[in-house]
Amino acid sequence: MNSDLAPLRIVPGSHIDLLDQTRLPHEEGFIAIRDVAALCEAIRALRVRGAPLLGLAAACGMAIGATTRGPSDTALRATYNELVATRPTAVDLAACAQDALTMALALPEGERNAALWRFAEGLAAKRAEEDAAIGANGAALIPEGAAVLTHCNAGGLATGGIGTALGVVWTAFAQGRAVRCYATETRPLLQGARLTAWELTRAGIPATLLPDSAVASLLGSGAVQVVVTGADRIAANGDSANKIGTAQIALAAAAYGVPFYIAAPLTTVDLACPDGSRIPIEFRDGGEVGGFDGARWAPDGIDTYNPAFDVTPARLIAAIVTERGVVRPPFGAGLAALAARAEGERPVH
Amino acid sequence: MNSDLAPLRIVPGSHIDLLDQTRLPHEEGFIAIRDVAALCEAIRALRVRGAPLLGLAAACGMAIGATTRGPSDTALRATYNELVATRPTAVDLAACAQDALTMALALPEGERNAALWRFAEGLAAKRAEEDAAIGANGAALIPEGAAVLTHCNAGGLATGGIGTALGVVWTAFAQGRAVRCYATETRPLLQGARLTAWELTRAGIPATLLPDSAVASLLGSGAVQVVVTGADRIAANGDSANKIGTAQIALAAAAYGVPFYIAAPLTTVDLACPDGSRIPIEFRDGGEVGGFDGARWAPDGIDTYNPAFDVTPARLIAAIVTERGVVRPPFGAGLAALAARAEGERPVH
Repeated sequence: MNSDLAPLRIVPGSHIDLLDQTRLPHEEGFIAIRDVAALCEAIRALRVRGAPLLGLAAACGMAIGATTRGPSDTALRATYNELVATRPTAVDLAACAQDALTMALALPEGERNAALWRFAEGLAAKRAEEDAAIGANGAALIPEGAAVLTHCNAGGLATGGIGTALGVVWTAFAQGRAVRCYATETRPLLQGARLTAWELTRAGIPATLLPDSAVASLLGSGAVQVVVTGADRIAANGDSANKIGTAQIALAAAAYGVPFYIAAPLTTVDLACPDGSRIPIEFRDGGEVGGFDGARWAPDGIDTYNPAFDVTPARLIAAIVTERGVVRPPFGAGLAALAARAEGERPVH
Repeated sequence: MNSDLAPLRIVPGSHIDLLDQTRLPHEEGFIAIRDVAALCEAIRALRVRGAPLLGLAAACGMAIGATTRGPSDTALRATYNELVATRPTAVDLAACAQDALTMALALPEGERNAALWRFAEGLAAKRAEEDAAIGANGAALIPEGAAVLTHCNAGGLATGGIGTALGVVWTAFAQGRAVRCYATETRPLLQGARLTAWELTRAGIPATLLPDSAVASLLGSGAVQVVVTGADRIAANGDSANKIGTAQIALAAAAYGVPFYIAAPLTTVDLACPDGSRIPIEFRDGGEVGGFDGARWAPDGIDTYNPAFDVTPARLIAAIVTERGVVRPPFGAGLAALAARAEGERPVH
């Protein structure tokens, strides 16, 4: 993602500027976030979203809190509690806020403010490096002249860097390998149509949007050479949970002989989870089905089936691309080795 | 479909009442169609749709034309031309208008008006019988206590009877076999969310709506025992073209061991078409992707991939249910025998 498109810009010692993702793709509006309450509102309203970007936003929130409320233990803990309460299931958000808090509490009060801003900047830099490494590792898998299909939004809007799956596309495009990216609309929340389509258009990558229903038709047509998606959680055996719709794309890819890749940072790998059957699947509000925004096209009150994620079995995945390298099936040993190495080298964050 | 829900009601010698399908599911409004111009507007505006129902509407249009414009050759031919021009690719519409015209021209002028109304009523009755037979033949395939998944709208709103795929669900529900019907939203035109969900709700069949992206998740969950969809065209070998999204549902059904059935009248079988690769696929306006009705959620001007249909290969189809019986794979001989027998017994219509 070009730096002018970064969805979160840090002005150290002062505030952050957030791209309001709820106004995309029609408006590219930034909001200056100068206090914790404004940040909490922005998180709740999904103006900022994406697991890694929420982690970064939370780290920034700790710095903003120290700046506006002072660096006392009490003030920092209050900020932490407010941030973590915004989206209780967002693991990265809570983890980054906790790391920032732990780091700051270990310092004298006079050093905390500057240290928290440095922590946030360091986290942003680390995320950008991770995305760049995933992009480079993944791009090597993309054949010359390839069209790539992706699902949902695993782009810079979700990470603050160049993105994971979209980072692979972006890097392969910069290298002259990828020539087009197909993006699914991604019902029910339409992140593909709203966010991925916007990122691709802004990056100058030729982009084609399709309904989720048209994936098998597209893959069967021979127009696509590679599928790449992100992941929300990868089990020890390689089974991967990602946005609802991913599993049926992987099934269609297998049926038509198109390789299916996952691109995700090693923090996504959960070695404590042996396989996909142990990954809990969150079900979301049924109101998301049968309508969008203010529009309703289904009968009122109809029952719905609305899981947020599905699990793509490892047997359908050709490779998992991480910032430390590409893991091929069988995934168990490779994922364990990379994850253990990354864990050993990891500082507080 | 209960008779109070019939989307087209004939008042012989006078007019027809059409359920305005563009106002569903929020409003159940009927329009009295008293002249050819009003009918042409209703067809163009999709107030009436579905291949079989368009055929019936066209036959009614010939009768309305004879009533309002008199039964001369010139008047009947003018009505025929206006009707056929409304949707040039609608094969049933043109075929039924042609049959009505041919029948009427062979009669003395004084008998034409009454004969055209009888022809329309006879066609409606024949359609209802066909649907009922498909429903009975298909219901025998549904296990006790089954939940059924369907796609798009192959219901009474499309046929004027009880529907084809939904007729199977309706009959199985009436027999106490089927206990729930899952319906996909069916992007981009959302016929599942707008029309199938409405039909199921009005018929009192427990219904659950899901995004097209959630099909593999649903089938993998074990909640569904049978998939049934309609078809727009069935090749001689059983390959079946149907609404975009059908092929990936069939792939997911195969992956999770759920039987996938097609329910369609024998007029859908095209013995001149050897296999699915010969079925022409219509691509629709890209504006349907990335938005709905007045709402736009994708960047303006983005390229789209928007086929109206896809082809489900015969190897994924467990059976094809017709009004003359159920055909099992390999489909070639069975389809040819049933289609030939039906053709031999068919009157002018």
